[in-house]
Amino acid sequence: MTKCFSVTCLEVIATMRDLRKKHQLVEAAGDTYGKTLTLLSLDVCSDDSVRKCIDSVKDHHIDILINNAGVGLLGPVESISMDEMKRVFETNFFGTVRMIKEVMPDMKRRQSGHIIVMSSVMGLQGVVFNDVYTASKFAIEGFCESMAVQLLKFNVKLSLIEPGPVHTEFETKMMEEVAKMEYPGADADTVRYFKDVYIQSSIDIFEALGQTPEDIAKCTKKVIESSRPRFRNLTNSLYTPIVAMKYADETGGLSVHTFYNLLFNFGSLMHITMSILKCLTCSCLRRRTISPD
Amino acid sequence: MTKCFSVTCLEVIATMRDLRKKHQLVEAAGDTYGKTLTLLSLDVCSDDSVRKCIDSVKDHHIDILINNAGVGLLGPVESISMDEMKRVFETNFFGTVRMIKEVMPDMKRRQSGHIIVMSSVMGLQGVVFNDVYTASKFAIEGFCESMAVQLLKFNVKLSLIEPGPVHTEFETKMMEEVAKMEYPGADADTVRYFKDVYIQSSIDIFEALGQTPEDIAKCTKKVIESSRPRFRNLTNSLYTPIVAMKYADETGGLSVHTFYNLLFNFGSLMHITMSILKCLTCSCLRRRTISPD
Repeated sequence: MTKCFSVTCLEVIATMRDLRKKHQLVEAAGDTYGKTLTLLSLDVCSDDSVRKCIDSVKDHHIDILINNAGVGLLGPVESISMDEMKRVFETNFFGTVRMIKEVMPDMKRRQSGHIIVMSSVMGLQGVVFNDVYTASKFAIEGFCESMAVQLLKFNVKLSLIEPGPVHTEFETKMMEEVAKMEYPGADADTVRYFKDVYIQSSIDIFEALGQTPEDIAKCTKKVIESSRPRFRNLTNSLYTPIVAMKYADETGGLSVHTFYNLLFNFGSLMHITMSILKCLTCSCLRRRTISPD
Repeated sequence: MTKCFSVTCLEVIATMRDLRKKHQLVEAAGDTYGKTLTLLSLDVCSDDSVRKCIDSVKDHHIDILINNAGVGLLGPVESISMDEMKRVFETNFFGTVRMIKEVMPDMKRRQSGHIIVMSSVMGLQGVVFNDVYTASKFAIEGFCESMAVQLLKFNVKLSLIEPGPVHTEFETKMMEEVAKMEYPGADADTVRYFKDVYIQSSIDIFEALGQTPEDIAKCTKKVIESSRPRFRNLTNSLYTPIVAMKYADETGGLSVHTFYNLLFNFGSLMHITMSILKCLTCSCLRRRTISPD
């Protein structure tokens, strides 16, 4: 879902591909629905849909654009077709670019506006068996890094939000399904590393470090309200060391070998660490967000 | 051009899309052509072409794969169509992924091999008006960061080469052509910043920091010959501070504001600095490569 926040009279436009699925959103919106919150149909994978959606906004005037549409893809690369990879890029990268291309010219003309892009810590650090998702998020990071310098000249702000794992209703189900699937094309060892090593570690990490969608929304709200919003905004301070590790060694060796050891050599130690972290962070650190101020 | 080096008997397979254009390569190869060097037709954008090329290699046995195919794209995003963007990704990202997917399973089975990917400093740091090219190189960085951890388990090496600007026979011509082109969809200010500010700075940077294709080949040879090749290999030590600056500030603000100031506020100072650097580095630093050892 890509949300277009138009702040004239605090008007919020929420978008979704299929408006027939609006009930949950309408319920959560309560009294605001039909007053300050309106819904529009939007498929970020379609040029026509994007143009039609933005054309329906009065004077194309959007103060804050939040790009949130994204899809995941997990598993050994050998069993992922090129078409599946392209579908991930179509939403995660080209969908965001399509929205920015449509909204940015009016922001530049008005010398005002804020573009917010929901990236991921996987846009900053690669994660094994998330090769294609990671690549799509890296792509959007590179695109935004390049755009930010130009947009600054036009007084248009650009901010990236970098969540770690986020608990959603589908997440545990997806993990369970992924563990049962066949992976044609991938050798037995690779499938075993994926199912028995990666998926198990991943469940531990989600349980110990996972945030809620509300945590991410709160962090995004802080970024919007900040007078000088940061370009990059990590939502989970527990992820800071991972990024720091990458930045500490320009050859990349430190990160590659640390993740290798965590996954393949110290799996049990990592399980224990995550269990301790889960207890320690149950109510305080776990939901702590880095303030954009 | 993607080069597949097969090191059994030091056999080298060079590839190109159109073998009718082989004359320059054949001339450069001298006596080796037809002996240790053979040529194969390869279009990394085609599944069929990639499969056919690799199938023609005896036992699919490739010891070292060098992914070098890449295309550039410059200019304001407003005047670049989604199709043009996808063409860049098709070669720079999906082309590399297609080659790795085809060659990697045999390397994993043999527990031996080295995959080399020609990335770019623009895969590490975004550059204004190179938004889409940068995104495609970031994507390949993310993909390789994720793959490297898994490949280490199979004793397969993965190395990224990160060149800065490289002088080719087309580069100056391309800069001149780009400066003359129209950019429909982009506003007058944006086109002016692109042509009068960015292109001018870019010519300065190319002249002061540019390396030759031979410099990049030498660095790649060192990476191949290293007993413990690094994951990331910057070819130009003069670019190290740019990457360090990014890594020094996790919020990304330092990089964005430094590039903004260099381009828009201190353009003349940058021109002078680059001219001095050009004199200082004419014969020594300019071609210095970071040794992978």
